[in-house]
Amino acid sequence: MNVSATMIAGMEKLYRTNFVNSLPGFKSACLIGTVDRHGSTNLAIFSSVVHIGAHPPLMGFILRPTSVPRHTYAHIRDTGVFTINHVHAGIHAQAHQTSARYPDGVSEFDACGLTPEYTPAISAPYVGESRIRIGLEFVEEVPIQANNTLLIIGGVVEVIVPDALIRRDGTIDIEGAETVAVSALDGYHTTCLIERLSYAKPDRDTRRVPE
Amino acid sequence: MNVSATMIAGMEKLYRTNFVNSLPGFKSACLIGTVDRHGSTNLAIFSSVVHIGAHPPLMGFILRPTSVPRHTYAHIRDTGVFTINHVHAGIHAQAHQTSARYPDGVSEFDACGLTPEYTPAISAPYVGESRIRIGLEFVEEVPIQANNTLLIIGGVVEVIVPDALIRRDGTIDIEGAETVAVSALDGYHTTCLIERLSYAKPDRDTRRVPE
Repeated sequence: MNVSATMIAGMEKLYRTNFVNSLPGFKSACLIGTVDRHGSTNLAIFSSVVHIGAHPPLMGFILRPTSVPRHTYAHIRDTGVFTINHVHAGIHAQAHQTSARYPDGVSEFDACGLTPEYTPAISAPYVGESRIRIGLEFVEEVPIQANNTLLIIGGVVEVIVPDALIRRDGTIDIEGAETVAVSALDGYHTTCLIERLSYAKPDRDTRRVPE
Repeated sequence: MNVSATMIAGMEKLYRTNFVNSLPGFKSACLIGTVDRHGSTNLAIFSSVVHIGAHPPLMGFILRPTSVPRHTYAHIRDTGVFTINHVHAGIHAQAHQTSARYPDGVSEFDACGLTPEYTPAISAPYVGESRIRIGLEFVEEVPIQANNTLLIIGGVVEVIVPDALIRRDGTIDIEGAETVAVSALDGYHTTCLIERLSYAKPDRDTRRVPE
Protein backbone atom coordinates (compact mmCIF):
# COMPACT_ATOMS: atom_id res chain seq x y z
CA MET A 1 0.00 0.00 0.00
CA ASN A 2 1.00 3.65 -0.44
CA VAL A 3 1.03 5.36 2.93
CA SER A 4 0.89 9.16 2.61
CA ALA A 5 2.33 11.77 4.98
CA THR A 6 -1.25 12.63 5.96
CA MET A 7 -1.95 9.02 6.89
CA ILE A 8 1.24 8.90 8.99
CA ALA A 9 0.29 12.12 10.79
CA GLY A 10 -3.12 10.58 11.58
CA MET A 11 -1.73 7.37 13.06
CA GLU A 12 -2.11 6.61 16.78
CA LYS A 13 1.13 7.72 18.49
CA LEU A 14 2.69 4.34 19.36
CA TYR A 15 1.62 2.85 16.00
CA ARG A 16 3.32 5.77 14.24
CA THR A 17 6.46 5.44 16.37
CA ASN A 18 6.69 1.74 15.46
CA PHE A 19 6.00 2.39 11.77
CA VAL A 20 8.47 5.25 11.29
CA ASN A 21 11.18 3.54 13.33
CA SER A 22 10.94 0.59 10.92
CA LEU A 23 11.77 2.71 7.88
CA PRO A 24 15.59 2.95 8.12
CA GLY A 25 16.00 -0.84 7.87
CA PHE A 26 18.29 -2.73 10.23
CA LYS A 27 20.02 -0.62 12.82
CA SER A 28 23.03 -0.77 15.05
CA ALA A 29 22.57 -1.93 18.66
CA CYS A 30 25.02 -0.22 21.00
CA LEU A 31 25.18 0.62 24.68
CA ILE A 32 26.56 4.08 25.39
CA GLY A 33 28.38 4.33 28.71
CA THR A 34 29.03 7.63 30.47
CA VAL A 35 30.11 8.99 33.86
CA ASP A 36 29.75 12.41 35.51
CA ARG A 37 32.52 14.19 37.41
CA HIS A 38 31.29 12.65 40.67
CA GLY A 39 31.63 9.11 39.35
CA SER A 40 27.93 8.37 38.75
CA THR A 41 27.65 6.07 35.73
CA ASN A 42 24.92 5.80 33.12
CA LEU A 43 24.28 3.23 30.41
CA ALA A 44 21.71 3.51 27.63
CA ILE A 45 20.92 1.57 24.46
CA PHE A 46 20.95 3.43 21.15
CA SER A 47 20.02 2.29 17.65
CA SER A 48 21.27 5.42 15.88
CA VAL A 49 25.05 4.99 16.01
CA VAL A 50 26.47 5.93 12.61
CA HIS A 51 29.84 6.10 10.88
CA ILE A 52 30.96 9.69 10.30
CA GLY A 53 34.48 9.25 8.97
CA ALA A 54 37.54 6.98 9.04
CA HIS A 55 40.39 9.52 9.06
CA PRO A 56 40.11 10.96 11.63
CA PRO A 57 38.00 8.11 13.07
CA LEU A 58 34.63 9.66 13.98
CA MET A 59 31.32 8.17 15.06
CA GLY A 60 27.99 9.80 15.85
CA PHE A 61 24.56 9.14 17.29
CA ILE A 62 21.23 10.95 17.45
CA LEU A 63 20.05 12.15 20.83
CA ARG A 64 16.92 13.82 22.16
CA PRO A 65 18.44 15.90 24.97
CA THR A 66 15.10 16.69 26.60
CA SER A 67 13.86 13.10 26.72
CA VAL A 68 15.14 9.75 27.99
CA PRO A 69 18.01 8.95 28.28
CA ARG A 70 18.62 12.27 30.00
CA HIS A 71 21.92 11.46 31.63
CA THR A 72 23.86 10.44 28.52
CA TYR A 73 23.95 14.00 27.21
CA ALA A 74 24.65 15.66 30.57
CA HIS A 75 27.49 13.27 31.34
CA ILE A 76 29.12 13.64 27.93
CA ARG A 77 29.08 17.41 28.26
CA ASP A 78 30.36 17.13 31.84
CA THR A 79 33.33 14.83 31.30
CA GLY A 80 33.80 14.94 27.51
CA VAL A 81 34.02 11.17 27.04
CA PHE A 82 31.78 8.18 26.33
CA THR A 83 31.97 4.55 25.29
CA ILE A 84 30.13 2.65 22.55
CA ASN A 85 29.70 -1.07 23.31
CA HIS A 86 28.27 -3.57 20.82
CA VAL A 87 25.25 -5.53 22.01
CA HIS A 88 25.53 -9.26 21.34
CA ALA A 89 22.96 -12.04 21.50
CA GLY A 90 23.93 -12.95 25.07
CA ILE A 91 23.14 -9.52 26.55
CA HIS A 92 20.39 -8.13 24.33
CA ALA A 93 17.70 -8.39 27.04
CA GLN A 94 19.82 -6.58 29.64
CA ALA A 95 20.75 -4.00 27.01
CA HIS A 96 17.08 -3.42 26.16
CA GLN A 97 16.26 -3.04 29.85
CA THR A 98 18.59 0.02 30.08
CA SER A 99 15.85 1.96 28.26
CA ALA A 100 13.62 1.84 31.37
CA ARG A 101 13.31 5.13 33.27
CA TYR A 102 15.26 4.42 36.43
CA PRO A 103 15.21 6.96 39.28
CA ASP A 104 18.09 9.42 39.67
CA GLY A 105 20.99 7.80 41.47
CA VAL A 106 20.33 4.33 40.04
CA SER A 107 22.97 3.21 37.54
CA GLU A 108 21.71 1.04 34.70
CA PHE A 109 24.86 -1.07 35.16
CA ASP A 110 23.56 -2.23 38.55
CA ALA A 111 19.88 -2.29 37.64
CA CYS A 112 20.40 -4.33 34.46
CA GLY A 113 23.20 -6.64 35.60
CA LEU A 114 26.02 -5.34 33.42
CA THR A 115 29.57 -4.72 34.61
CA PRO A 116 31.38 -1.38 34.33
CA GLU A 117 35.01 -1.74 33.27
CA TYR A 118 37.67 0.90 32.95
CA THR A 119 40.92 1.40 31.05
CA PRO A 120 43.58 4.07 31.57
CA ALA A 121 42.68 5.69 28.24
CA ILE A 122 39.29 7.11 29.21
CA SER A 123 37.23 7.77 32.36
CA ALA A 124 33.90 6.58 30.90
CA PRO A 125 32.84 3.01 31.73
CA TYR A 126 32.92 0.18 29.22
CA VAL A 127 30.49 -2.73 29.39
CA GLY A 128 32.49 -5.76 30.58
CA GLU A 129 30.16 -8.20 28.83
CA SER A 130 30.45 -6.50 25.41
CA ARG A 131 32.89 -7.94 22.88
CA ILE A 132 33.58 -4.86 20.74
CA ARG A 133 34.04 -1.63 22.62
CA ILE A 134 35.02 1.86 21.55
CA GLY A 135 36.18 4.74 23.75
CA LEU A 136 35.49 8.22 22.40
CA GLU A 137 36.14 11.86 23.15
CA PHE A 138 33.37 14.36 22.50
CA VAL A 139 34.13 16.37 19.36
CA GLU A 140 31.01 18.19 18.22
CA GLU A 141 27.33 18.66 18.96
CA VAL A 142 25.36 19.27 15.78
CA PRO A 143 21.85 20.68 16.32
CA ILE A 144 19.11 19.42 14.00
CA GLN A 145 16.60 22.24 13.70
CA ALA A 146 13.83 20.15 12.15
CA ASN A 147 12.95 18.48 15.47
CA ASN A 148 15.42 19.77 18.08
CA THR A 149 17.46 16.58 18.19
CA LEU A 150 21.24 16.52 18.28
CA LEU A 151 23.88 14.62 16.38
CA ILE A 152 26.65 13.93 18.89
CA ILE A 153 30.06 13.29 17.31
CA GLY A 154 32.93 11.56 19.05
CA GLY A 155 36.51 10.85 18.04
CA VAL A 156 37.75 7.30 18.60
CA VAL A 157 40.52 7.15 21.23
CA GLU A 158 40.54 3.38 21.83
CA VAL A 159 39.04 0.19 20.42
CA ILE A 160 38.94 -3.00 22.50
CA VAL A 161 38.36 -6.02 20.29
CA PRO A 162 39.46 -9.68 20.39
CA ASP A 163 42.46 -10.21 18.07
CA ALA A 164 40.77 -13.19 16.43
CA LEU A 165 37.92 -11.00 15.12
CA ILE A 166 40.16 -8.63 13.13
CA ARG A 167 40.53 -9.88 9.55
CA ARG A 168 43.68 -9.41 7.52
CA ASP A 169 42.09 -6.50 5.59
CA GLY A 170 41.16 -4.62 8.78
CA THR A 171 37.45 -5.44 8.86
CA ILE A 172 36.12 -6.72 12.17
CA ASP A 173 34.03 -9.90 12.06
CA ILE A 174 31.04 -8.41 13.89
CA GLU A 175 28.91 -11.45 13.02
CA GLY A 176 31.55 -13.62 14.69
CA ALA A 177 31.16 -11.38 17.75
CA GLU A 178 27.40 -12.12 17.64
CA THR A 179 26.66 -8.39 17.43
CA VAL A 180 22.90 -8.04 16.93
CA ALA A 181 20.93 -5.90 14.49
CA VAL A 182 17.79 -4.03 15.58
CA SER A 183 14.47 -3.54 13.79
CA ALA A 184 12.14 -0.72 14.83
CA LEU A 185 12.43 -0.18 18.61
CA ASP A 186 12.27 -3.69 19.99
CA GLY A 187 13.32 -6.37 17.47
CA TYR A 188 16.70 -8.08 18.04
CA HIS A 189 18.20 -10.16 15.25
CA THR A 190 21.22 -12.36 14.70
CA THR A 191 22.75 -12.31 11.22
CA CYS A 192 23.99 -14.67 8.56
CA LEU A 193 26.61 -13.48 6.07
CA ILE A 194 25.48 -13.80 2.45
CA GLU A 195 28.82 -12.68 1.06
CA ARG A 196 31.31 -9.86 0.95
CA LEU A 197 31.54 -7.99 -2.33
CA SER A 198 34.68 -6.47 -3.79
CA TYR A 199 35.17 -2.74 -4.42
CA ALA A 200 32.78 -1.94 -7.28
CA LYS A 201 34.19 -0.83 -10.64
CA PRO A 202 32.16 0.38 -13.61
CA ASP A 203 33.73 -1.95 -16.18
CA ARG A 204 33.03 -5.26 -14.50
CA ASP A 205 30.31 -7.08 -12.58
CA THR A 206 30.31 -7.29 -8.81
CA ARG A 207 32.64 -9.98 -7.44
CA ARG A 208 32.56 -11.93 -4.24
CA VAL A 209 35.49 -11.44 -1.83
CA PRO A 210 37.15 -14.82 -1.27
CA GLU A 211 37.04 -16.11 2.33
CA MET B 1 43.61 -6.14 21.91
CA ASN B 2 43.46 -2.43 22.77
CA VAL B 3 43.86 -0.38 19.60
CA SER B 4 44.83 3.23 20.34
CA ALA B 5 44.03 6.33 18.30
CA THR B 6 47.73 6.48 17.37
CA MET B 7 47.61 2.92 16.04
CA ILE B 8 44.48 3.76 13.99
CA ALA B 9 46.17 6.88 12.54
CA GLY B 10 49.15 4.70 11.54
CA MET B 11 47.11 2.05 9.72
CA GLU B 12 47.36 1.66 5.94
CA LYS B 13 44.46 3.65 4.41
CA LEU B 14 42.22 0.81 3.19
CA TYR B 15 42.88 -1.23 6.35
CA ARG B 16 41.85 1.78 8.45
CA THR B 17 38.75 2.38 6.34
CA ASN B 18 37.70 -1.25 6.83
CA PHE B 19 38.46 -1.17 10.55
CA VAL B 20 36.68 2.08 11.40
CA ASN B 21 33.68 1.26 9.20
CA SER B 22 33.23 -1.94 11.28
CA LEU B 23 32.85 -0.04 14.54
CA PRO B 24 29.19 1.09 14.38
CA GLY B 25 27.94 -2.52 14.21
CA PHE B 26 25.32 -3.59 11.68
CA LYS B 27 24.13 -0.88 9.37
CA SER B 28 21.18 -0.13 7.17
CA ALA B 29 21.43 -0.94 3.44
CA CYS B 30 19.45 1.51 1.34
CA LEU B 31 19.53 2.77 -2.22
CA ILE B 32 18.95 6.50 -2.54
CA GLY B 33 17.28 7.53 -5.79
CA THR B 34 17.40 11.05 -7.17
CA VAL B 35 16.68 12.99 -10.36
CA ASP B 36 17.80 16.38 -11.63
CA ARG B 37 15.51 18.93 -13.30
CA HIS B 38 16.41 17.55 -16.72
CA GLY B 39 15.28 14.05 -15.79
CA SER B 40 18.71 12.44 -15.33
CA THR B 41 18.46 9.83 -12.59
CA ASN B 42 21.02 8.66 -10.05
CA LEU B 43 21.06 5.73 -7.66
CA ALA B 44 23.58 5.13 -4.89
CA ILE B 45 23.88 2.73 -1.96
CA PHE B 46 24.22 4.17 1.54
CA SER B 47 24.84 2.47 4.88
CA SER B 48 24.28 5.59 7.00
CA VAL B 49 20.48 6.01 6.87
CA VAL B 50 19.28 6.86 10.37
CA HIS B 51 16.00 7.58 12.16
CA ILE B 52 15.70 11.25 13.15
CA GLY B 53 12.15 11.45 14.46
CA ALA B 54 8.67 9.94 14.18
CA HIS B 55 6.46 13.01 14.47
CA PRO B 56 7.08 14.63 12.09
CA PRO B 57 8.54 11.57 10.31
CA LEU B 58 12.16 12.43 9.52
CA MET B 59 15.07 10.37 8.23
CA GLY B 60 18.67 11.30 7.60
CA PHE B 61 21.90 10.07 6.05
CA ILE B 62 25.55 11.10 6.05
CA LEU B 63 27.02 12.39 2.82
CA ARG B 64 30.44 13.44 1.65
CA PRO B 65 29.47 16.13 -0.89
CA THR B 66 32.91 16.36 -2.46
CA SER B 67 33.35 12.63 -3.03
CA VAL B 68 31.41 9.79 -4.65
CA PRO B 69 28.43 9.65 -4.97
CA ARG B 70 28.56 13.18 -6.29
CA HIS B 71 25.17 13.31 -7.97
CA THR B 72 23.01 12.41 -4.98
CA TYR B 73 23.70 15.74 -3.27
CA ALA B 74 23.42 17.87 -6.41
CA HIS B 75 20.14 16.27 -7.42
CA ILE B 76 18.58 16.62 -3.95
CA ARG B 77 19.47 20.31 -3.87
CA ASP B 78 18.21 20.70 -7.46
CA THR B 79 14.79 19.07 -7.12
CA GLY B 80 14.31 18.86 -3.34
CA VAL B 81 13.27 15.20 -3.30
CA PHE B 82 14.78 11.74 -2.96
CA THR B 83 13.78 8.15 -2.33
CA ILE B 84 15.13 5.60 0.16
CA ASN B 85 14.74 1.99 -1.00
CA HIS B 86 15.55 -1.04 1.19
CA VAL B 87 18.07 -3.46 -0.26
CA HIS B 88 16.96 -7.10 0.00
CA ALA B 89 18.85 -10.33 -0.48
CA GLY B 90 17.75 -10.60 -4.13
CA ILE B 91 19.29 -7.29 -5.23
CA HIS B 92 22.26 -6.78 -2.92
CA ALA B 93 24.86 -7.35 -5.65
CA GLN B 94 23.21 -4.83 -8.00
CA ALA B 95 22.84 -2.42 -5.10
CA HIS B 96 26.55 -2.76 -4.24
CA GLN B 97 27.47 -2.16 -7.87
CA THR B 98 25.89 1.33 -7.74
CA SER B 99 28.96 2.41 -5.76
CA ALA B 100 31.14 2.15 -8.89
CA ARG B 101 32.21 5.47 -10.42
CA TYR B 102 30.19 5.56 -13.62
CA PRO B 103 30.82 8.32 -16.17
CA ASP B 104 28.56 11.38 -16.24
CA GLY B 105 25.40 10.67 -18.18
CA VAL B 106 25.25 7.00 -17.16
CA SER B 107 22.41 6.21 -14.75
CA GLU B 108 23.13 3.52 -12.17
CA PHE B 109 19.60 2.22 -12.83
CA ASP B 110 20.66 1.19 -16.34
CA ALA B 111 24.22 0.20 -15.49
CA CYS B 112 23.21 -2.01 -12.55
CA GLY B 113 19.98 -3.50 -13.92
CA LEU B 114 17.50 -1.85 -11.55
CA THR B 115 14.19 -0.34 -12.63
CA PRO B 116 13.16 3.27 -11.95
CA GLU B 117 9.51 3.60 -10.92
CA TYR B 118 7.50 6.71 -10.27
CA THR B 119 4.42 7.72 -8.28
CA PRO B 120 2.42 10.96 -8.46
CA ALA B 121 3.63 11.96 -4.97
CA ILE B 122 7.25 12.69 -5.83
CA SER B 123 9.44 13.21 -8.91
CA ALA B 124 12.40 11.15 -7.64
CA PRO B 125 12.68 7.56 -8.88
CA TYR B 126 11.94 4.56 -6.69
CA VAL B 127 13.68 1.22 -7.21
CA GLY B 128 11.07 -1.12 -8.70
CA GLU B 129 12.78 -4.21 -7.26
CA SER B 130 12.82 -2.87 -3.68
CA ARG B 131 10.08 -4.01 -1.28
CA ILE B 132 10.07 -1.13 1.20
CA ARG B 133 10.36 2.31 -0.32
CA ILE B 134 10.16 5.80 1.14
CA GLY B 135 9.69 9.09 -0.72
CA LEU B 136 11.12 12.16 1.00
CA GLU B 137 11.31 15.92 0.66
CA PHE B 138 14.54 17.65 1.56
CA VAL B 139 14.18 19.43 4.92
CA GLU B 140 17.63 20.37 6.20
CA GLU B 141 21.34 20.09 5.48
CA VAL B 142 23.35 19.90 8.69
CA PRO B 143 27.09 20.56 8.27
CA ILE B 144 29.45 18.47 10.38
CA GLN B 145 32.53 20.61 10.96
CA ALA B 146 34.74 17.79 12.25
CA ASN B 147 35.27 16.33 8.77
CA ASN B 148 33.18 18.42 6.33
CA THR B 149 30.49 15.81 5.89
CA LEU B 150 26.78 16.60 5.84
CA LEU B 151 23.77 15.11 7.56
CA ILE B 152 20.94 15.35 5.03
CA ILE B 153 17.47 15.32 6.56
CA GLY B 154 14.30 14.46 4.66
CA GLY B 155 10.64 14.44 5.64
CA VAL B 156 8.67 11.33 4.69
CA VAL B 157 5.97 12.10 2.11
CA GLU B 158 5.13 8.53 1.09
CA VAL B 159 5.87 4.95 2.12
CA ILE B 160 5.28 2.07 -0.28
CA VAL B 161 5.14 -1.24 1.56
CA PRO B 162 3.27 -4.54 1.07
CA ASP B 163 0.19 -4.64 3.36
CA ALA B 164 1.17 -8.09 4.63
CA LEU B 165 4.41 -6.74 6.12
CA ILE B 166 2.73 -4.17 8.41
CA ARG B 167 2.04 -5.68 11.84
CA ARG B 168 -0.95 -4.74 13.96
CA ASP B 169 1.22 -2.51 16.15
CA GLY B 170 2.59 -0.54 13.20
CA THR B 171 6.03 -2.16 12.98
CA ILE B 172 7.09 -3.32 9.52
CA ASP B 173 8.42 -6.87 9.25
CA ILE B 174 11.69 -5.89 7.57
CA GLU B 175 13.07 -9.39 8.06
CA GLY B 176 10.04 -10.74 6.20
CA ALA B 177 10.95 -8.29 3.42
CA GLU B 178 14.45 -9.85 3.38
CA THR B 179 16.00 -6.44 4.01
CA VAL B 180 19.73 -6.98 4.49
CA ALA B 181 22.10 -5.62 7.14
CA VAL B 182 25.59 -4.37 6.21
CA SER B 183 28.91 -4.83 7.99
CA ALA B 184 31.82 -2.50 7.26
CA LEU B 185 31.73 -1.50 3.57
CA ASP B 186 31.10 -4.77 1.80
CA GLY B 187 29.45 -7.42 4.01
CA TYR B 188 25.80 -8.27 3.29
CA HIS B 189 23.83 -10.27 5.86
CA THR B 190 20.39 -11.79 6.20
CA THR B 191 18.87 -11.78 9.68
CA CYS B 192 17.08 -14.11 12.07
CA LEU B 193 14.78 -12.63 14.73
CA ILE B 194 15.76 -13.62 18.27
CA GLU B 195 12.74 -11.94 19.83
CA ARG B 196 10.93 -8.68 20.26
CA LEU B 197 11.09 -7.18 23.74
CA SER B 198 8.32 -5.17 25.40
CA TYR B 199 8.67 -1.53 26.43
CA ALA B 200 11.14 -1.58 29.33
CA LYS B 201 9.96 -0.57 32.81
CA PRO B 202 12.19 -0.18 35.87
CA ASP B 203 10.11 -2.37 38.19
CA ARG B 204 10.10 -5.56 36.14
CA ASP B 205 12.36 -7.70 34.01
CA THR B 206 12.35 -7.48 30.24
CA ARG B 207 9.50 -9.40 28.61
CA ARG B 208 9.21 -10.97 25.21
CA VAL B 209 6.49 -9.58 22.90
CA PRO B 210 4.14 -12.45 21.96
CA GLU B 211 4.06 -13.30 18.24
